Amino acid sequence: MAVGDADAADAAASAAGETLTATVVGASGFAGGELLRILAGHPNFDLAGATSREYAGKSVGSVHPNLRGSDLRFSDPADLDSVDVVFAATPHGVSMAQIDQFYESADTVVDLSADFRLNTEAQYDQWYDGHDAPEYLDEAVYALPELHREELPGADLIAAGGCNATATILGLYPLFDGGVLSGGERIVADVKVGSSEGGAGGGKASSHPERSGVVRPYAPTGHRHEAEIEQELGASVSFTAHAVDMVRGAAATCHVFPDGPVSKGDLWSAFRGTYDDEHFVRLQSGGSGVYRYPEPKAVAGTNYAEVGFELDPGNERLVVFSAIDNLVKGTAGQAVHAANLALGLEETAGLDFQGLHPVGSP
Amino acid sequence: MAVGDADAADAAASAAGETLTATVVGASGFAGGELLRILAGHPNFDLAGATSREYAGKSVGSVHPNLRGSDLRFSDPADLDSVDVVFAATPHGVSMAQIDQFYESADTVVDLSADFRLNTEAQYDQWYDGHDAPEYLDEAVYALPELHREELPGADLIAAGGCNATATILGLYPLFDGGVLSGGERIVADVKVGSSEGGAGGGKASSHPERSGVVRPYAPTGHRHEAEIEQELGASVSFTAHAVDMVRGAAATCHVFPDGPVSKGDLWSAFRGTYDDEHFVRLQSGGSGVYRYPEPKAVAGTNYAEVGFELDPGNERLVVFSAIDNLVKGTAGQAVHAANLALGLEETAGLDFQGLHPVGSP
Amino acid sequence: MAVGDADAADAAASAAGETLTATVVGASGFAGGELLRILAGHPNFDLAGATSREYAGKSVGSVHPNLRGSDLRFSDPADLDSVDVVFAATPHGVSMAQIDQFYESADTVVDLSADFRLNTEAQYDQWYDGHDAPEYLDEAVYALPELHREELPGADLIAAGGCNATATILGLYPLFDGGVLSGGERIVADVKVGSSEGGAGGGKASSHPERSGVVRPYAPTGHRHEAEIEQELGASVSFTAHAVDMVRGAAATCHVFPDGPVSKGDLWSAFRGTYDDEHFVRLQSGGSGVYRYPEPKAVAGTNYAEVGFELDPGNERLVVFSAIDNLVKGTAGQAVHAANLALGLEETAGLDFQGLHPVGSP
Amino acid sequence: MAVGDADAADAAASAAGETLTATVVGASGFAGGELLRILAGHPNFDLAGATSREYAGKSVGSVHPNLRGSDLRFSDPADLDSVDVVFAATPHGVSMAQIDQFYESADTVVDLSADFRLNTEAQYDQWYDGHDAPEYLDEAVYALPELHREELPGADLIAAGGCNATATILGLYPLFDGGVLSGGERIVADVKVGSSEGGAGGGKASSHPERSGVVRPYAPTGHRHEAEIEQELGASVSFTAHAVDMVRGAAATCHVFPDGPVSKGDLWSAFRGTYDDEHFVRLQSGGSGVYRYPEPKAVAGTNYAEVGFELDPGNERLVVFSAIDNLVKGTAGQAVHAANLALGLEETAGLDFQGLHPVGSP
Repeated sequence: MAVGDADAADAAASAAGETLTATVVGASGFAGGELLRILAGHPNFDLAGATSREYAGKSVGSVHPNLRGSDLRFSDPADLDSVDVVFAATPHGVSMAQIDQFYESADTVVDLSADFRLNTEAQYDQWYDGHDAPEYLDEAVYALPELHREELPGADLIAAGGCNATATILGLYPLFDGGVLSGGERIVADVKVGSSEGGAGGGKASSHPERSGVVRPYAPTGHRHEAEIEQELGASVSFTAHAVDMVRGAAATCHVFPDGPVSKGDLWSAFRGTYDDEHFVRLQSGGSGVYRYPEPKAVAGTNYAEVGFELDPGNERLVVFSAIDNLVKGTAGQAVHAANLALGLEETAGLDFQGLHPVGSP
Repeated sequence: MAVGDADAADAAASAAGETLTATVVGASGFAGGELLRILAGHPNFDLAGATSREYAGKSVGSVHPNLRGSDLRFSDPADLDSVDVVFAATPHGVSMAQIDQFYESADTVVDLSADFRLNTEAQYDQWYDGHDAPEYLDEAVYALPELHREELPGADLIAAGGCNATATILGLYPLFDGGVLSGGERIVADVKVGSSEGGAGGGKASSHPERSGVVRPYAPTGHRHEAEIEQELGASVSFTAHAVDMVRGAAATCHVFPDGPVSKGDLWSAFRGTYDDEHFVRLQSGGSGVYRYPEPKAVAGTNYAEVGFELDPGNERLVVFSAIDNLVKGTAGQAVHAANLALGLEETAGLDFQGLHPVGSP
Repeated sequence: MAVGDADAADAAASAAGETLTATVVGASGFAGGELLRILAGHPNFDLAGATSREYAGKSVGSVHPNLRGSDLRFSDPADLDSVDVVFAATPHGVSMAQIDQFYESADTVVDLSADFRLNTEAQYDQWYDGHDAPEYLDEAVYALPELHREELPGADLIAAGGCNATATILGLYPLFDGGVLSGGERIVADVKVGSSEGGAGGGKASSHPERSGVVRPYAPTGHRHEAEIEQELGASVSFTAHAVDMVRGAAATCHVFPDGPVSKGDLWSAFRGTYDDEHFVRLQSGGSGVYRYPEPKAVAGTNYAEVGFELDPGNERLVVFSAIDNLVKGTAGQAVHAANLALGLEETAGLDFQGLHPVGSP
Repeated sequence: MAVGDADAADAAASAAGETLTATVVGASGFAGGELLRILAGHPNFDLAGATSREYAGKSVGSVHPNLRGSDLRFSDPADLDSVDVVFAATPHGVSMAQIDQFYESADTVVDLSADFRLNTEAQYDQWYDGHDAPEYLDEAVYALPELHREELPGADLIAAGGCNATATILGLYPLFDGGVLSGGERIVADVKVGSSEGGAGGGKASSHPERSGVVRPYAPTGHRHEAEIEQELGASVSFTAHAVDMVRGAAATCHVFPDGPVSKGDLWSAFRGTYDDEHFVRLQSGGSGVYRYPEPKAVAGTNYAEVGFELDPGNERLVVFSAIDNLVKGTAGQAVHAANLALGLEETAGLDFQGLHPVGSP
């Protein structure tokens, strides 16, 4: 099917009460497993396929134990049935090579890799190595509905943001949206992430004995997510990522030095102005009890982001905290959220899990 | 209202399509929080109240961060509105003292403490200290639907089982139900539990520095759950519980010495015979991959129990494994499951969360 | 005894081959337990006493299980024997109230609280509430030998630094010592700490279910350790502390914006110039393998600090990493290290543990 | 050199005040790293070599971050210098193939694999696959000094026991040694182990996301350590091992059904009779406080074993608990302990680390 034809829009217009079919490509990874879980509980989607080269023929529950009750089996990625939506949860580089194949199967493609997040080939080349399908970069919509709600309806190529970028962008965006920052300020994003970001493959650095209890600077400088962050915010952010001991979760602490004085009222006004109508963003700033600021634990398993802030007038600094589940709001949930909007479905469909308390790692 | 009158049965008969009201008493604890979460997502329940002496007036999200989006506030337990069901998640001893007050508010009481689990005052006195309302012991139904499905419809007093007992009973019951065991055999239940079993109160032994990374025999012998286990199975079990480093979960490893040879076929036949029609029990025994036997992680946040087994002919032993989320299948989920059956609702209503993969502690 | 008399210097001059006696006041806490462990293995110290109001009469092993083999029992803090050195590991405020009592027992006092870290009463009043013994502030020596090696010999009042301050100071000091920074630059210290910093007391926020798996901003701004950092570095640092899931450890990531270009050579030169002769500081910056930068795990249980850095020219930023065990280099080990130097003992005496690999939390 | 000649005995007789040389073969693994750590701090050993095929030429600190300060580099295992002792920490099967090469380098070989633990080829063949050097099986001494103190002096081939077997044997041995058991009783060993038992290699099952928070029956039945246990105790034990969330540690809970009544006095008498003179075994049974029974955390990093018990008269059961650090008392520390005795050194030399409190995983 040709990209951009009327089919996707048609589907969107009529979909709210219907059932759409979807295939998850790369379904044995962590992000793919989350897509399976979310889509299996989604009122408007039927899972038509779940591909995995390595596990083709095996039940999805043999890899994802939470899905042990499911009858679905992994299929070979070479055999894609015709469906309404392809969700691609493959490693970086795969989607750009297979995008035409995806469009032969579906009108709408939602990609969870970095392949279509950046708007121009020049940006891509600056941070990655050579794009195979640069002609799609311009039309792809960055998935975060909090920033791209207007562009999503009818979109036929959606690029889910990177998990660390998502946490950082959601924390800082209100400062730009609300006029607190203009783009030249010093901004540090110090991010702490769980081990699921390393993927399902194992490897020595992510082995339990080596990975447990760490505070490990795994990307001290030059993290590729800086590219997305700069694109979405229109400003440079000094980014550093640390591995800490949790499985799910990304928490960004952004240290911001505005050009002049900023009051708490300015901040509340900015954050409320940006997020008051956003279902999946919760402002959480101070208060009493054990959980006073955004925390990955509080949103684990959910599509919620928590955002909060604190003033440090003595140092002329703002501190902004944001927390997400890297595999849901940071990947698979964000993808489904955007697909819901693209296809005219209920925005929250399939994304109603409220999370657990207490929860460990989680 | 008088216990045992026709109202409860009436409610049950007509409830499937209706909405019932419920109050959670003791809603600030971990079990109470799970009840809030489950009931908030339950299609047939409206949460009318959530009591907490300590937190009355505060939002439920100030204690349970996963519920931060909720408008519900804790109310004083002295003021119970009239509702269809009271779920009591109070410490042992409270429900027996307040059972008459509960029945003034509701026709159906579901109690999560140990107060009404044992059938007779004599049993109770053997393991606990003096019962305040022994006249209710006989009529209370032990909540596990896998054992008491027939007694639940119309029940107006339901006692959710203990979490460790639930894990142990679900693992061993098929051996008795299927005739593999008759009651005089040596059976050891070696149970491993998460820190949420200790409740929300804190205390030195459950502080993070002391509790992290433990394998701690916290109930070497004489655990009170032995009473429930013996009642439900009709056999004595040598029980020992260990704290291990997870927040949610109870895993029972039962070492069983049958009187004569037992084949794998005998075991499959027994377990399938007992559980093939049970939605919330999954048999998981061997196979390939990382997750080959029951594991708390695989059911974390869900109402599922996993049960599996292995033969050890060289030692004339069977080993049975079972795993649950102590706060869901072991407490709040079991309670809602039983309430669904008692009130004629869809058995799985409110209990459809499938769990996460990967998940840490969880 | 009068402070500042000749006795302490005498003791120092002759101590290297002798045995000194020591009492640990506040020995049931985590820092006190570390002092017991270190002093028990120290070739020049005899443990004369270990006080604890709560546990007086009990064996030290009943609180600190690693010391189960010891015969030592806690004694009442009111009964301090005459010894060479008092190590005080009491909560903030206790030492300032009891300093005269300490000096009646010993010539040398090593205090692990915040009571004597700041040089002037004005500084103290700015961050804390009213000092009981301000006349001692001026003479107390801040314990870090990497900064105060010259002042320690003969010192009779030593104030061990705060753990988070220690991590931050050790990371940043070479930039000032080596002339890379001059004091007006933007500096952020984003610190991640283990649960042992919360002390042995328990409490809801540090209970295992609530504390596991967190990334929790527990001191977003205004942390009191900023006072020490500013005093020791002569520069303001924007400080934010997060609780993460480990028991021991403090890791500081310092984001620094120097006024002009800085090369890797400049940094190596600064760090080597400052630390090449320091036994307990290891430079660790890049390289291959799993552990490329400073990590709390790599120094857990030891008196070592690891320090490293990375350049981020695109953002005109330096990132400096440092990692310590908060209870050793950050508290008890630092105290013994300083006492060794004050008393003329071998600098490394009692501090030779090399740490473990692999280790979990640790 | 011929095995069994006088050289080893000579070395032993004269070694106490001397320095011996040692090579660690297989030094990049976890057990090898522990040998490096222990021998580096051992007063009587000089580390002459540390071999690793994979890391030859790299510093030992590049793999074992706790040894970052060391100058030692891995060497090729093909080039073994002549030393007094070879410690072999290679995978099962390697030592039996290279035993003659080891003896060309050293008079004394201490092997940490399973290759020489069993006394006869028949035993070996029952549990493993074909032995390459069965002629050494008879002369090898099983390393546990608590059972083989008399045979160790002068031994030139020492086989360190398996970690799970060591925990189990140390818990149960007093019951046989003290006449409580005679060998036909039902005994269950339910063992919980840390992730370091899986070795340094990584792999999907031991990746942090999959391995965190587990209670995973990884060896439900048929664990090879049953062979050692039976050999050392002269009795069969029904063994089951579970992975739990810690890095170091093995804890055995042994459920024992004696033929007749046993009193607490009988047990204390048996355990004290066996262990009262054993430096590295601590009896820990009940008492007050957080740590009442043996716990891996309490011995982490040390060569201590903790052993305790409880009576369950209602079930005619004894429960015995034992806990070790699998890499120290269960492997490398046991090896050095045995070598100390074999070579006439101070029994505790190099093994004086007392462990930490608090500690996480550890």
